Amino acid sequence: MPDPILFPGSPLDRADHQRRDSAWIDELLQRDDTRFVALWRLRVLVVQGSEPCIAWATKVVCESMNRDVKEVLLGLWDGVAYFAVDISELKNPEEVLGATGVAKFEDVRAVAQRLPYEQAAIIAHARSRVDWHARHVYCPACGGKTTPRGGGANRVCQSCDAEHFPRTDPVAIAVVSLGDRCLLGRQRGWPARLYSALAGFIESGETLEEAVRREIAEESGIPIGEVRYLASQPWPFASSLMIGCRAEALDDKIKLDTFELEDAAFFERDRVRQALEGDTEGANLILPPPMAIANFLLRSWIAEE
Amino acid sequence: MPDPILFPGSPLDRADHQRRDSAWIDELLQRDDTRFVALWRLRVLVVQGSEPCIAWATKVVCESMNRDVKEVLLGLWDGVAYFAVDISELKNPEEVLGATGVAKFEDVRAVAQRLPYEQAAIIAHARSRVDWHARHVYCPACGGKTTPRGGGANRVCQSCDAEHFPRTDPVAIAVVSLGDRCLLGRQRGWPARLYSALAGFIESGETLEEAVRREIAEESGIPIGEVRYLASQPWPFASSLMIGCRAEALDDKIKLDTFELEDAAFFERDRVRQALEGDTEGANLILPPPMAIANFLLRSWIAEE
Repeated sequence: MPDPILFPGSPLDRADHQRRDSAWIDELLQRDDTRFVALWRLRVLVVQGSEPCIAWATKVVCESMNRDVKEVLLGLWDGVAYFAVDISELKNPEEVLGATGVAKFEDVRAVAQRLPYEQAAIIAHARSRVDWHARHVYCPACGGKTTPRGGGANRVCQSCDAEHFPRTDPVAIAVVSLGDRCLLGRQRGWPARLYSALAGFIESGETLEEAVRREIAEESGIPIGEVRYLASQPWPFASSLMIGCRAEALDDKIKLDTFELEDAAFFERDRVRQALEGDTEGANLILPPPMAIANFLLRSWIAEE
Repeated sequence: MPDPILFPGSPLDRADHQRRDSAWIDELLQRDDTRFVALWRLRVLVVQGSEPCIAWATKVVCESMNRDVKEVLLGLWDGVAYFAVDISELKNPEEVLGATGVAKFEDVRAVAQRLPYEQAAIIAHARSRVDWHARHVYCPACGGKTTPRGGGANRVCQSCDAEHFPRTDPVAIAVVSLGDRCLLGRQRGWPARLYSALAGFIESGETLEEAVRREIAEESGIPIGEVRYLASQPWPFASSLMIGCRAEALDDKIKLDTFELEDAAFFERDRVRQALEGDTEGANLILPPPMAIANFLLRSWIAEE
């Protein structure tokens, strides 16, 4: 069984029942043991050192700041409440939080692999949620102002009362195999020799399997037979649900969509295995890191031989 | 193999490459053979009679109307372009379209099962897309006005240039089994004796399997072991991707969330089979119709015996 992919495995109970009670949320915000993960322009505050971890703030730290922060209740864990706070307006956030020299705001994609597994999951949830709130200040239906409700579970329009819920965008991603070869592609601007599984957003009016067939055909021209679901992964850039599949190619005549991809090609299994095992020079191929579901899909293809 | 569920199976090619060319879209709109499916307040124009079908309009009909209609290119089929037009502003739409006595605007949920299979799929796509455009007139980030692009593939903010894409909301739906029984629930306001599979939106920061476990636990208190993907279905009310699973209950001690559900209970396999076969009186149980993935999930549970 391949290593687990990153971002699942959050230990938090999202407290769906209780969070409807705003007095309860207010009480949690006042508790001494409540923990806050601070996000500054979508970067997360991380304690530096050989074993980095989330730098949890307490209400004391939050109260010391300009009080226009917005909290999102992420959930409960062993009786303790965990919130995300968006402090993007601060000028010198590390200084304001008293974290200079101890903790640093880091890019989530860069730091996630170095965090404890369950903390990466918490960060995925926090980043997606905070990002959604920041970009949904107005009602898309009427243009009115929206405000959060249910501890950040959703937003409500102050003008037309429409409720808006965070989006989660389903993405179909597939390793397409044809005997001992699999189809991979690369986008313009990626690091040299990096290839990955083809992927695309699932659109309205189609199933997962139809989306896989359409995306692969659009991007590579390859017709697809059987499609099989393998695993899913929350991907917090911005807020996708990656739905990982194996798909079977019916031929190998690539017709590239040069708008979407710079290149697509079939790769021999031995070459993929060599790259997965770290010999990217020998394989002349770089694959996505273990944190990505594309890596998982490739590892399970190799393992199934 | 159970009957197919409704709404997949669209024959249209969404023309992802070509639709980036607005001159091409304009040319399609002028062609004599281009077909339009008219939606009026999300109802679809259907030719009446023993074999109802979509009442396709031509550009002649569209040109006769007030020209503030908005077209969405659904795709191509055998060289013919198919658009959806939102004509919700019209007062007497059947009269304006010259359809009185021949075609009628019908509720999509009510009429879908009586349409040819591939037309139900086209309608699912059209309804989700038109609904999304109508409710995304403003930019949620800055409050500016948005306009469609790419033949209705997305919208762009006129103020901040942000691009907005149609949402597809992934929903986890599961038949939860425990030996020869399965867990079903009902919401307040449903027709008497109607029960269905438990379901809920997949949130940011969780996998499909985690969403199934969380939703079932929240709504019924039942702990879940294995979760297995079975099938998916686009559901155009408003624009969900139903992801259907089988889940295994670890015990049968229900703790109902009375906010979400009016009741939840375990039902014997024989009783479910009886209801699926149409004897809803004898079973004292009504199940969702064959068009719904819940029905498919129950049928595959029965078939697996």
